[in-house]
Amino acid sequence: MAVLMAEVNISEGKNMALVEEVKNALLAGDPVDLIDLNSNEDHNRTVFTYKGEPRAVLEGTKRLAAKAVELIDMTKHHGSHPRMGAVDVVPFIPVKDITIEETIVLAKEFGSFLGGLGVPVYYYEDAATREDRKALPKLRKGEYEGLKDRMADPEDIDYGPDEGPSTFNAKSGATVTGVRFPLVAFNVNLKMNDIEIGKKIVKAVRAATGGYQHVRAIALPLEERGLIQVSMNLTNYEKTPIHRVFETIKSEASQYGVLIEDTELVGPLPVYALESVLKFYLQAHSFNMEQLYS
Amino acid sequence: MAVLMAEVNISEGKNMALVEEVKNALLAGDPVDLIDLNSNEDHNRTVFTYKGEPRAVLEGTKRLAAKAVELIDMTKHHGSHPRMGAVDVVPFIPVKDITIEETIVLAKEFGSFLGGLGVPVYYYEDAATREDRKALPKLRKGEYEGLKDRMADPEDIDYGPDEGPSTFNAKSGATVTGVRFPLVAFNVNLKMNDIEIGKKIVKAVRAATGGYQHVRAIALPLEERGLIQVSMNLTNYEKTPIHRVFETIKSEASQYGVLIEDTELVGPLPVYALESVLKFYLQAHSFNMEQLYS
Repeated sequence: MAVLMAEVNISEGKNMALVEEVKNALLAGDPVDLIDLNSNEDHNRTVFTYKGEPRAVLEGTKRLAAKAVELIDMTKHHGSHPRMGAVDVVPFIPVKDITIEETIVLAKEFGSFLGGLGVPVYYYEDAATREDRKALPKLRKGEYEGLKDRMADPEDIDYGPDEGPSTFNAKSGATVTGVRFPLVAFNVNLKMNDIEIGKKIVKAVRAATGGYQHVRAIALPLEERGLIQVSMNLTNYEKTPIHRVFETIKSEASQYGVLIEDTELVGPLPVYALESVLKFYLQAHSFNMEQLYS
Repeated sequence: MAVLMAEVNISEGKNMALVEEVKNALLAGDPVDLIDLNSNEDHNRTVFTYKGEPRAVLEGTKRLAAKAVELIDMTKHHGSHPRMGAVDVVPFIPVKDITIEETIVLAKEFGSFLGGLGVPVYYYEDAATREDRKALPKLRKGEYEGLKDRMADPEDIDYGPDEGPSTFNAKSGATVTGVRFPLVAFNVNLKMNDIEIGKKIVKAVRAATGGYQHVRAIALPLEERGLIQVSMNLTNYEKTPIHRVFETIKSEASQYGVLIEDTELVGPLPVYALESVLKFYLQAHSFNMEQLYS
């Protein structure tokens, strides 16, 4: 059975009665599995993370977004987290038996729906319609307060949204939605404290400097442990699997006589990211993830 | 949430109306997740595999067994698979957040219930009350047809069952129930065709010849592929983890200049068996299996 995940960020993290209404809208239809609901008062922001049958997730996201757009007034919003809309960012994440391409179709159905409610919508990441709209920080630069001017400037990337009105909506701001693969947050801790060697290893693996296509990485010192950490996001574990990045780091480190202290897989990890790990280390090439039970 | 699995073998694999009635009895109470229902006509045997909240699994197993004992008449049973009762073998398997010891308590509640229905019951594997009753083949030797004599022989291990009447029950035969850890079926295929080397490697890893405590192994030729296979059951993946057995086989094979062609993880695999694999190969010692989602 196909599984889709959504991670919906709305601009309200203080008024719990409002958050509850939005949650009830999400849950009012075919069942979805609400994995996490995280409200932050300082950010004044709530993140809903849920998964389920793709159409149930899509329809639930429409209900959630419609309710948030109805209840949230951005003219009164303050919070420390960057944002530009009542429904701020909505990534759809293909988890199982659904392709990126199929997920883009659903994300665009959502974008079109939200546009129909009068909210300007931008597609980002794998659903972007323009190369310069792929990255969220660029789309959200200047935040809600800067949006009116950006939408009016033909030279700006926020000029002419992908869906909805082309003029500023003061109450709702704008929404960014799209598709990204599940992230794997993977840190490798090197048994030494020379940040320069750490930076050389980062250069070897990250996309921006000639490394693997789906690796974002930085080197940073873990002061208390006296180690250097290569801190990474793997943005597509199928095309750039965990074991390959790890073995490359091991190999690059070895030329400096540096060993691995340990590694960290941080936060939620899709079980499917383990398939290539098993096949590589155990040589279990006939293994099918459907064999797993829990 | 704790998860218990049961794998109930009943002596009927032809009369599907009867199997359906037994299945309905299983499903008539608190929900359990029926993973597999496998009926074999030649064996004249059906295996129900299901899991769920431990007490739901226990109560479902009682209902299932009571219905099978009601409907199956062993005096008329023929089939190619060894058996000695209408409800033949009932292993309970701790999957998650339940110990072997806690599972033994539940298995004994089931045994006592079935004994109360007039069925002689023997505890085996981790629930065995005597060392010589641990192994199923010894308990079932001579099958249903030999049971009357064995139960009457004070020298026999089937004399004096753990629950129920101490005399033969012609209609129901006897039941073996108990507790075992989830099995991992793991085969390592060696890139050579010398069975003698295969046997030496088997000797190094299996419990019976001084190897790992929870490994059963044989060596056999894969004629078509021109390989030797070390075919194993790992009977406790926590105490004898997959990676350790694999690395030992690699190391033992290397003294003969033999490499691994590939390996096979066969059939259902508890996801928890992957924890030590991840920690060993990725050095991800802080990883918690609760981080996984699917």
